[in-house]
Amino acid sequence: MKLQVAIDRVPLERALLMMRDLDSIVDVIELGTSIVKDYGLVRLRDEKIHLNHSKLLLDLKTNDEGKYEFEKGFSTGADILTVMASSSRETIEQVYDVAMKNQKQILIDLMETDEKKIEEISDFKDAIFCIHHSKDAGSGFDAATTTANFHKNHPEIEHIAVAGGIDLSQAKILASQNIADMVIVGSKISGQDDPVSAAKNFMEVIQ
Amino acid sequence: MKLQVAIDRVPLERALLMMRDLDSIVDVIELGTSIVKDYGLVRLRDEKIHLNHSKLLLDLKTNDEGKYEFEKGFSTGADILTVMASSSRETIEQVYDVAMKNQKQILIDLMETDEKKIEEISDFKDAIFCIHHSKDAGSGFDAATTTANFHKNHPEIEHIAVAGGIDLSQAKILASQNIADMVIVGSKISGQDDPVSAAKNFMEVIQ
Repeated sequence: MKLQVAIDRVPLERALLMMRDLDSIVDVIELGTSIVKDYGLVRLRDEKIHLNHSKLLLDLKTNDEGKYEFEKGFSTGADILTVMASSSRETIEQVYDVAMKNQKQILIDLMETDEKKIEEISDFKDAIFCIHHSKDAGSGFDAATTTANFHKNHPEIEHIAVAGGIDLSQAKILASQNIADMVIVGSKISGQDDPVSAAKNFMEVIQ
Repeated sequence: MKLQVAIDRVPLERALLMMRDLDSIVDVIELGTSIVKDYGLVRLRDEKIHLNHSKLLLDLKTNDEGKYEFEKGFSTGADILTVMASSSRETIEQVYDVAMKNQKQILIDLMETDEKKIEEISDFKDAIFCIHHSKDAGSGFDAATTTANFHKNHPEIEHIAVAGGIDLSQAKILASQNIADMVIVGSKISGQDDPVSAAKNFMEVIQ
């Protein structure tokens, strides 16, 4: 299982320093929606972010205007962009097409999405489907049980990521479960005094 | 009925000039999601946008982290911010609270939202509920019939806006229908060679 670290709600300068420090350690570094909406894609493009080891994900959370947002998003050098599962099917088709043409990836954010909608969009076979517990909905997310049930209901979905307040013990269970390709961790790494050491701890338990 | 003009997918300098020109004419000027995601809230705050007549709406399309996004959003001087109806109830509660405390408004974007979810969130009585046809879903949106049906199904919802490729004749019908508080027009005004004259034409037919 791979590890994605999400960086959110910090000044851009701090986010960029943290990215540099985490680049040799984790598989994917995410600049979260807060960074995208605070600083914008034009600024992120102008920063010419270069990562040696990790892939870059921008959490665009596209709801509409898929082609426009994904073309702008990939112009920053990002490898993976996100779209909301609650978008129209046409929006998801647009962003999938843009990503495939550019040999990039999309992550479909399943936050607050019902089973019916998941079934309708489960045919985007190269997409990463992200089981995502809303931050605002608070604690009480049983990541492993949710992931097991999701896999049972949607065995056709190949690429699964899991996000939402994941801690070290949850990450360990998810890794041993062997269903999800990737676990996404936010504040438990990027919100710590020593993100590098926190990231190393996570990498250890998911091997 | 009031008129909101949405400005999208143009350089910020052009958007700011268009705002200045439309300020004395229309009720609400929207900087669309493309402007927010391209330039970011920090830049929009630093621009110190000042409108004399029109209210300013930023189409944030918040999906999560409601308190953070709305506090940042209102720091730009915006009067109205948007949240996706597909967000968790907790997210909508957070943004509603932030708006009420700041004597501002929220617009709940109903794009791709089913009846069940609308019922669950119809108690936010000071919110504007926006019937919104996805741009990516293409043409074929019967704004007047959709609005009439919406009002019949949700008579408890007081404040209604309608968006999605609205043209002059649709705006006229919506005004005579007397259900929606506001019509939102994008490219039919801001995408024209002479947005001021286009806006005046719309203002005339909705009086």
